[in-house]
Amino acid sequence: MRWRLVFVPVVFLGERLAPEAHTLLFVLSVLAIVPLAALLSHATESVAAKTGDAVGGLLNATLGNLTELVIAIAALRAGQYMLVKASIAGAIVTNTLFMLGSSFLLGGLKHHAQEFNPASARLQSVQLFLATIALLVPSAVNVADSVGTAAFTQTLSLCLATLLIVTYGLGLLFSLGTHREVFADAGHGHAEETPWPIGRAIATLVVVTVLVALVSEIFVESVQEAAMAFGMTQAFVGFIVVALVGAAAEMASAFSAARKNRLDLSVGIALGSAVQIALFVAPVLVLASYAIGPAPMNLQFWPGAVVMMLIAALTASLVSNTGRAAWFSGVPLLAVYLVFAITLYLLPPRAS
Amino acid sequence: MRWRLVFVPVVFLGERLAPEAHTLLFVLSVLAIVPLAALLSHATESVAAKTGDAVGGLLNATLGNLTELVIAIAALRAGQYMLVKASIAGAIVTNTLFMLGSSFLLGGLKHHAQEFNPASARLQSVQLFLATIALLVPSAVNVADSVGTAAFTQTLSLCLATLLIVTYGLGLLFSLGTHREVFADAGHGHAEETPWPIGRAIATLVVVTVLVALVSEIFVESVQEAAMAFGMTQAFVGFIVVALVGAAAEMASAFSAARKNRLDLSVGIALGSAVQIALFVAPVLVLASYAIGPAPMNLQFWPGAVVMMLIAALTASLVSNTGRAAWFSGVPLLAVYLVFAITLYLLPPRAS
Amino acid sequence: MRWRLVFVPVVFLGERLAPEAHTLLFVLSVLAIVPLAALLSHATESVAAKTGDAVGGLLNATLGNLTELVIAIAALRAGQYMLVKASIAGAIVTNTLFMLGSSFLLGGLKHHAQEFNPASARLQSVQLFLATIALLVPSAVNVADSVGTAAFTQTLSLCLATLLIVTYGLGLLFSLGTHREVFADAGHGHAEETPWPIGRAIATLVVVTVLVALVSEIFVESVQEAAMAFGMTQAFVGFIVVALVGAAAEMASAFSAARKNRLDLSVGIALGSAVQIALFVAPVLVLASYAIGPAPMNLQFWPGAVVMMLIAALTASLVSNTGRAAWFSGVPLLAVYLVFAITLYLLPPRAS
Repeated sequence: MRWRLVFVPVVFLGERLAPEAHTLLFVLSVLAIVPLAALLSHATESVAAKTGDAVGGLLNATLGNLTELVIAIAALRAGQYMLVKASIAGAIVTNTLFMLGSSFLLGGLKHHAQEFNPASARLQSVQLFLATIALLVPSAVNVADSVGTAAFTQTLSLCLATLLIVTYGLGLLFSLGTHREVFADAGHGHAEETPWPIGRAIATLVVVTVLVALVSEIFVESVQEAAMAFGMTQAFVGFIVVALVGAAAEMASAFSAARKNRLDLSVGIALGSAVQIALFVAPVLVLASYAIGPAPMNLQFWPGAVVMMLIAALTASLVSNTGRAAWFSGVPLLAVYLVFAITLYLLPPRAS
Repeated sequence: MRWRLVFVPVVFLGERLAPEAHTLLFVLSVLAIVPLAALLSHATESVAAKTGDAVGGLLNATLGNLTELVIAIAALRAGQYMLVKASIAGAIVTNTLFMLGSSFLLGGLKHHAQEFNPASARLQSVQLFLATIALLVPSAVNVADSVGTAAFTQTLSLCLATLLIVTYGLGLLFSLGTHREVFADAGHGHAEETPWPIGRAIATLVVVTVLVALVSEIFVESVQEAAMAFGMTQAFVGFIVVALVGAAAEMASAFSAARKNRLDLSVGIALGSAVQIALFVAPVLVLASYAIGPAPMNLQFWPGAVVMMLIAALTASLVSNTGRAAWFSGVPLLAVYLVFAITLYLLPPRAS
Repeated sequence: MRWRLVFVPVVFLGERLAPEAHTLLFVLSVLAIVPLAALLSHATESVAAKTGDAVGGLLNATLGNLTELVIAIAALRAGQYMLVKASIAGAIVTNTLFMLGSSFLLGGLKHHAQEFNPASARLQSVQLFLATIALLVPSAVNVADSVGTAAFTQTLSLCLATLLIVTYGLGLLFSLGTHREVFADAGHGHAEETPWPIGRAIATLVVVTVLVALVSEIFVESVQEAAMAFGMTQAFVGFIVVALVGAAAEMASAFSAARKNRLDLSVGIALGSAVQIALFVAPVLVLASYAIGPAPMNLQFWPGAVVMMLIAALTASLVSNTGRAAWFSGVPLLAVYLVFAITLYLLPPRAS
């Protein structure tokens, strides 16, 4: 399996020699990302074996989002706020619906019934719900009254960004600090292979995450070009394709954990990543835009994106609040995701 | 009791001899439907005694909806899409709020506390929520941008219809196939009378359902005429009166089961019927419109109808997710239903 | 502590001698309300020790809302319907989010984990959800079609008001009558001090409530003047400041109970008060407006207010449906409250 890591240098070489060969670069980056994702998921499980699935999931989600943060800061510097917001909303919806839904489905196809800690899922659903409320307000107010609200929206976004970051910090303090015993693993999965020593696991996580970020950038760019060439709409590519591809490595870890009956780890990666983007990455980008952007960014999203995030949060909450899952638990999540994906795919260009 | 079955031929005779005597036909059809409903509910309970309440409820709901499907296909052939959609939305709201709420209330007035399988209620609430999301999207997009979206709405409706049917099929595979043990009856009711042998019960179900469908058609038509004569608005008649009358026989079964402390059967009929209409009947009508209608039908509903379906699904989910019921469990469902009914009754004609 | 009661006559004297000295009156009324609130909370706990927390909470909430009812009737007589509606909506949102959230937070900072009866919280969340649906409909219909709906809105409001009062009465019959055993206290708190005899406790409750109402009126008026002088918007003052100040005494009781590990009492006061305002006080004011107002009042609210009430009801339902709380349980409630408060504070004047 590990000999496939040879594709990692090959894809970098290809990007330097033939930057216009999008289809070739696409194939090469897929071949390169697969062994990297496998390494990443083994390293995550090795860390989780020491620290518990809550911390392991958080670590995996954080490293995954770190790369998104780096890419977003580059877009921020270029003033491409529409792109940044589309990638935030797309990542939240994709992680909440597709990654969680597929984990339930794939895990459930192997195991008849699975359990996970409902306290953890509930905490993250509530945080996600809160974040969508915070994003709903500036968008709703702006729709209602479009005159003279630019300054208002900007100040409001700054305040809400601070509030979300504080809430995220309090959530970590609660789940990893004062009440960590409430968030212990409920599942009964075991790592099939012997875990690596913790030092090697963390070093692998960090190095492989950097490699994944670099390959992903090539991946995302070639996919975008290829998707546009296939006649896909801008909204579909930004919201669905980029979000799916950008989270490929996290998904590999989440799905692998679900297959090994470690749903706590899967839920921790999927919902934990969505929560982190909504309550930490997005607000940090708003604050960072003051320092590095050409103009401040606000938290005002396209109304359709806010509605999708709200529906995603409610669906995840409905499905995951019992702490028990079977294969069908994934179906409503994936079906709602398909409703969104089909709509965006078919949406006439001018309406987006 | 059974001598009352004599009213069944009488109503058919009346319809042939005096088709304009709406009030007489209304009274006769009520008198005819009562003994038929009693037969139907006894046959349903006899089947459920063999198969469990999940299958029994599904069978009852399917036979009830079969008649609605037949009537809707006639309307489809005539191109009356507004009527078809109003009857779909009305049936979903009425089954979810009125039938379920009255079952809780009537069962609770006889039994201090009742139990039912919460897994079953949760599965159906989630499916209903998913269906309302799927109906929300084409309606919302259409409101947002009314130019050049006709083709888009049509293609979208076709895709969503297929998705809903697949989801419905997967739900049946899950609840009756791979995980049937999760959906076993939780209630402790017993049939008071000795159940019929299964062959006789199924034959009765089929024959009586056909008779109910024929009588219902006379019933619905005469009620519509009578209601209009009483000055009721079109919206109220289509959404409330027709839906109530059309589901009279299913309601008789659901209420009778609740009084006998078999809430699993009641929930199976009420929510199961709503889920089947939303995820199976409505999509099938969209697909069928390509073959038999003058033009394809889409899944775009009057926004008020979508909001009512969404609120109905959320209320049912809030009330039924614990698996415990008492008389007051029915009150919020019936109160929300009354809010809708009063609003539609009072709505000025031009606003509908 | 009790010597501070001397400020009660002082504030009445001050109001008579220097009605324009708003800052002085503000300080004096704060000093007077603190010992009154302490008396009130001790009296409430003494009653609850005899009757259980459900009845104790209801009594406290009723007395608190009685003063709001008296103030609202004065505003009704003056035809200030905007003010009445803002105070209703503000009280519902403040009690549901701020009072409940702070109770969870303050109780959780002292006790690692707390329990309360989830049946009680669920009943009240569902009732609150129902009330927001009932308020949503006339507002939504009015937005959709603004011509010729005045008479419709008025008749609809009258019907919905009656429906809400009946539902509230049925809720009391259920929780205090037929199924009172379901709503027994789940918490394990004990009154630290010996409770007063029941007669003395009830007499104290009544007398102190009257004094609190009189002081609150001075308090609210001086705060409004002071807040406007500080440049706060009308919407913020009406929705947030007045609601917070008007419920100061109830909050003192709820917070004190939470610190003593009697969350059932806190939840009973916070949600019970919100439910009572939504399902009893507001409808009674609509009915009363026919007798005493210059024109009938309707139930049509500013759409933003309806959305805030709906979000508040959903958040309370998400957070409180397990019957377990820790300090973080208060964070989402308070964060949503802050989102609303910040938005109203920043809202440009013309948009309100």
